[in-house]
Amino acid sequence: MFFASDNGAPVHPAVFAAMERANAGYALSYGNDAATDALRDRIRVVFEAPTAEVLLLTTGTAANALALALLTPPWGTTFCHRHAHIAEDECGAPEFFSGGAKLTLIDGPHGKISPNALEQAIAQTGGSVHVAQRGALSLTNVTEAGTLYTAAELSALTAVAKAHGLPVHLDGARFANALAATGATPAELSWRAGVDVLSLGGTKNGLLAAEALVLFDPAKAWEAELRRKRAGHLNSKLRFVAAQFEAWFSNDLWLTLARHANTMAARLATGLAQVPGAEILHSTPANIIFARLPEAAHARAKAAGAVYYQSDDTLGRLVASWSTTEDDVDALLAAFKS
Amino acid sequence: MFFASDNGAPVHPAVFAAMERANAGYALSYGNDAATDALRDRIRVVFEAPTAEVLLLTTGTAANALALALLTPPWGTTFCHRHAHIAEDECGAPEFFSGGAKLTLIDGPHGKISPNALEQAIAQTGGSVHVAQRGALSLTNVTEAGTLYTAAELSALTAVAKAHGLPVHLDGARFANALAATGATPAELSWRAGVDVLSLGGTKNGLLAAEALVLFDPAKAWEAELRRKRAGHLNSKLRFVAAQFEAWFSNDLWLTLARHANTMAARLATGLAQVPGAEILHSTPANIIFARLPEAAHARAKAAGAVYYQSDDTLGRLVASWSTTEDDVDALLAAFKS
Amino acid sequence: MFFASDNGAPVHPAVFAAMERANAGYALSYGNDAATDALRDRIRVVFEAPTAEVLLLTTGTAANALALALLTPPWGTTFCHRHAHIAEDECGAPEFFSGGAKLTLIDGPHGKISPNALEQAIAQTGGSVHVAQRGALSLTNVTEAGTLYTAAELSALTAVAKAHGLPVHLDGARFANALAATGATPAELSWRAGVDVLSLGGTKNGLLAAEALVLFDPAKAWEAELRRKRAGHLNSKLRFVAAQFEAWFSNDLWLTLARHANTMAARLATGLAQVPGAEILHSTPANIIFARLPEAAHARAKAAGAVYYQSDDTLGRLVASWSTTEDDVDALLAAFKS
Amino acid sequence: MFFASDNGAPVHPAVFAAMERANAGYALSYGNDAATDALRDRIRVVFEAPTAEVLLLTTGTAANALALALLTPPWGTTFCHRHAHIAEDECGAPEFFSGGAKLTLIDGPHGKISPNALEQAIAQTGGSVHVAQRGALSLTNVTEAGTLYTAAELSALTAVAKAHGLPVHLDGARFANALAATGATPAELSWRAGVDVLSLGGTKNGLLAAEALVLFDPAKAWEAELRRKRAGHLNSKLRFVAAQFEAWFSNDLWLTLARHANTMAARLATGLAQVPGAEILHSTPANIIFARLPEAAHARAKAAGAVYYQSDDTLGRLVASWSTTEDDVDALLAAFKS
Repeated sequence: MFFASDNGAPVHPAVFAAMERANAGYALSYGNDAATDALRDRIRVVFEAPTAEVLLLTTGTAANALALALLTPPWGTTFCHRHAHIAEDECGAPEFFSGGAKLTLIDGPHGKISPNALEQAIAQTGGSVHVAQRGALSLTNVTEAGTLYTAAELSALTAVAKAHGLPVHLDGARFANALAATGATPAELSWRAGVDVLSLGGTKNGLLAAEALVLFDPAKAWEAELRRKRAGHLNSKLRFVAAQFEAWFSNDLWLTLARHANTMAARLATGLAQVPGAEILHSTPANIIFARLPEAAHARAKAAGAVYYQSDDTLGRLVASWSTTEDDVDALLAAFKS
Repeated sequence: MFFASDNGAPVHPAVFAAMERANAGYALSYGNDAATDALRDRIRVVFEAPTAEVLLLTTGTAANALALALLTPPWGTTFCHRHAHIAEDECGAPEFFSGGAKLTLIDGPHGKISPNALEQAIAQTGGSVHVAQRGALSLTNVTEAGTLYTAAELSALTAVAKAHGLPVHLDGARFANALAATGATPAELSWRAGVDVLSLGGTKNGLLAAEALVLFDPAKAWEAELRRKRAGHLNSKLRFVAAQFEAWFSNDLWLTLARHANTMAARLATGLAQVPGAEILHSTPANIIFARLPEAAHARAKAAGAVYYQSDDTLGRLVASWSTTEDDVDALLAAFKS
Repeated sequence: MFFASDNGAPVHPAVFAAMERANAGYALSYGNDAATDALRDRIRVVFEAPTAEVLLLTTGTAANALALALLTPPWGTTFCHRHAHIAEDECGAPEFFSGGAKLTLIDGPHGKISPNALEQAIAQTGGSVHVAQRGALSLTNVTEAGTLYTAAELSALTAVAKAHGLPVHLDGARFANALAATGATPAELSWRAGVDVLSLGGTKNGLLAAEALVLFDPAKAWEAELRRKRAGHLNSKLRFVAAQFEAWFSNDLWLTLARHANTMAARLATGLAQVPGAEILHSTPANIIFARLPEAAHARAKAAGAVYYQSDDTLGRLVASWSTTEDDVDALLAAFKS
Repeated sequence: MFFASDNGAPVHPAVFAAMERANAGYALSYGNDAATDALRDRIRVVFEAPTAEVLLLTTGTAANALALALLTPPWGTTFCHRHAHIAEDECGAPEFFSGGAKLTLIDGPHGKISPNALEQAIAQTGGSVHVAQRGALSLTNVTEAGTLYTAAELSALTAVAKAHGLPVHLDGARFANALAATGATPAELSWRAGVDVLSLGGTKNGLLAAEALVLFDPAKAWEAELRRKRAGHLNSKLRFVAAQFEAWFSNDLWLTLARHANTMAARLATGLAQVPGAEILHSTPANIIFARLPEAAHARAKAAGAVYYQSDDTLGRLVASWSTTEDDVDALLAAFKS
């Protein structure tokens, strides 16, 4: 009954198998190998973006912070939701990588920014030499609240950004879950919706440690590579990161795993509706649920061995993963109810 | 015939086996798991340093740059050899992590710094508010030239540093090779010789992506953790980095692999002595050889499929790894000679 | 009729006289001169703080950003009012000087933070390695809204900060105006109220370019000097900055000038009460007034040559200075009314 | 007998007069005033560079560090002489402003870089993602050794830089002395010789605190303004910096003062040739002399009240300024000889 985070789940066996296949013999290090080249090409195909540049990384924080450093100058500000991962969970990595750029925090219900709120936030910045200059827009899909932006919603937001000349970053730590939930294509939820740089997360969806920074506009690719190296994020045996992604994309494993996680969360949400005193905070199309539950229900679940985060006495965050089983869900629900 | 670098070698099979064992079930992320705890304890035992703090990382550049940021303030300078990895091969990562600290480059034959040269370099720094302040000493063992510092040599250098109040970092990307070559214990080549912070490298000696930052003085452990997170280097599924090290230390695998690499390099060095026109530049106690060879010899080797780096028409760098075979060595020698 | 800012006023003649007296002969540069020493001693006397350290600067942004870099680590956050100068008017200088520390913006009416709001903001930070750590509290007095903190109000706020171990910075760009308005002593509005570091501003109150960073705890004085030099803020002919302050403190000129500015603002506020449609937004104890006025009134004033800032069609900011005359005030009022 | 530095000299009286003239009435702050505009135009005329952009500053370190941050990215390196002010005397300001860019130190006799040495230094950098990338060339004229680059020598060096695509910065802390010594025009010693950005120093030549950053290519002017503000170097009452320069350029005062300083240094050099045991280290076309003298000579001079720097028992640095008199020189010589 582990619902603490999808990054506490094990690695999918196919990923180990792919890494072991990649372990045959020698290969030039630092990404100068055939496997890494092939994976980059594969991502271009998956995203229907033949000129995109792809940098492999091992953490989502590195991907996000690198992206923002590329898009926002040190004297700029990145517009993001108040509870974005880049704002709340990265210990200032965006500020570090960017040389001190700001984040302008935008409020919005259910973890989402509205075009109006974005427009207002932008209107209050820029102009004189005394103030932070307009940098980038950073969105997150699936959001930190477990909600979704549809392709149309993304487009409406990026249109506001573009009208002011701002480039757009998407934190896709759970991009596969968003694809599975919306049925959209990778292109539709990224560059076709106005995203310039995507942090494509694999680690929360079955991989060991694999993230990709996808630059749909390759103009800053060399700068990105220098920033990656300089941040200590150019792994030497990069073929093993490529191998993880290769397994992920094969037979659409990434979508299968994400769909499963979403399905398990949906089962959990459905069951929670029958738990006395339970209240689900947001819609739950993906694999994250925020729910208020009576203290006694939390106590029973913990006593039964459930692992998940609580923000306060009643608010819990429950995350399903590729390896969550129906039995896990049902056991948790039973503990909440009994 | 791959002699380009020890980080181009495959991962040792025992490492995959350990990671797959670690893949049983769920675990809290970000190092809050039993396997990571156990591994940190194991490193304390291996180094006879019960109060040391250990941070797991995936690249040596991250380990080095984090170490220097801990030891040198932004207005300080780190003393190191002109050809140190931190000076020549990390795209300014130390400057980035430290917020702009300098490196004071010290010349010395065979990749080594002498106590006199260090004393002189220190004497030329510090004092007024106009100049870079004295920061740390950073040494590398095995050096970039493939040579060694003995424990006594390290102690002589760290004594100079300590006399001026400077802390000491050791870049141990090939620390196991140094242990194997000297027969010293881990403690003897680190804290007993005056080292305060060690970058302990596993990736060049059979691991997939595993480095440890060992803080023999734990006073800055929390700062180190914040800097790691902020740099995007706190991997979520950290148990798999721990597992790599667990395999490494089991049955002294790390020393077995390093000893083998050193032995293969020695065999190569012995053979090179019989290649007409060959000249070995430094003593070669570890697994790296710099050798001048006639252009024709290089051409024959490349034609035979040998892979290694050349700095100019005649100077080659040849690196043996845990997976180098006697046949690899003999084939390379045959190509050079024929 | 210049009410745009107190830094648009001329320099007081006594300041030039003092600088010309300081211009006799040679002096060692970079503050190693007798005049600078004497001025630092004088500030210690004025503030009844015999162990304080004083650094002379030429801009308030430099003083503020230096202070925050001393008090907040790169991974920390400084708590301040949403409209603080450090947040809105320094183009990210605090982020630059601190190496990327954050600002946590606190809302509050009339430009002021309440102890409750501070307590809540602090409660939401700190703890895990993933979040910004608690840095410093930064207050402004006179506030950006032209309002005041009394010594008791400052103490209540700094008590909250101290209870959480946070050091306190005070942006005193208009510190003399605050003294004049409250009748408190310099010590009462600074270290006795819990302030650790003060940006003491002279430029807005009759000096040419003179600010002092006062460190009531001298522990970080050397770090402050290194940061000042490294930021290019150690002026060579520092005796002329000292001379400006010498004139300022002589015969309490600083208080005389500030009192005059406050009095002129009060005259203006009184008069505005009689302007049809005028509304003053905050209490106006110091030299800044925010007032809403009919568009026609603004138009008449501008046509009559008045210079001041407007945020929108009706909101104007009017700042009196040491050189504002009763005639200036009356002429402006006449224009508003006619 | 003050020969410690030209920045220990008093301010020229005409400078105070100009500042007092500028003190009539109010003016918009932060450079939005007519005097600052007029001064920028005047610099464009003086340099025959109608499209140049000019930023006023108060310290040379700020000017240099801003310039390098504009020209070299964080992952780049600036090529400069080993004893350049940016390398030895600014406490890491270039590293701070640039976000951690490196300096590549080039040796050369008499404080000068040769085109060959520059070519070699450049050849050893750039290329792979692992190394510092090529940034800018920074030259100093008058050099730290008191020697000169002619316009032809500058052109030869900047041609090497340009051939590799590197922009060129000139530290002109003593630019007027270089003009006076060479007889070249401002344009000839700057943009016509390939200089892209000039730190034009006034403080060492009679001004109070006035430096100008001259961007011959205005493309980065806005970035420069943002960097200036962000570094706390946008002084509010900027008209007084403009006034200093206005006095400086009027009637060619800057050249008159510099010529006088050079003449006094020449008189000193001539006299030193007759001091038993004296040896002048470099040619002395400008206002700085490095001379070896017997310890007893130093002792006599110090006893007679001479003030100057000694690097060791015999090596002294003697700097003449605009206010040095023949009597000062003769008295110093007499003390050395007696």
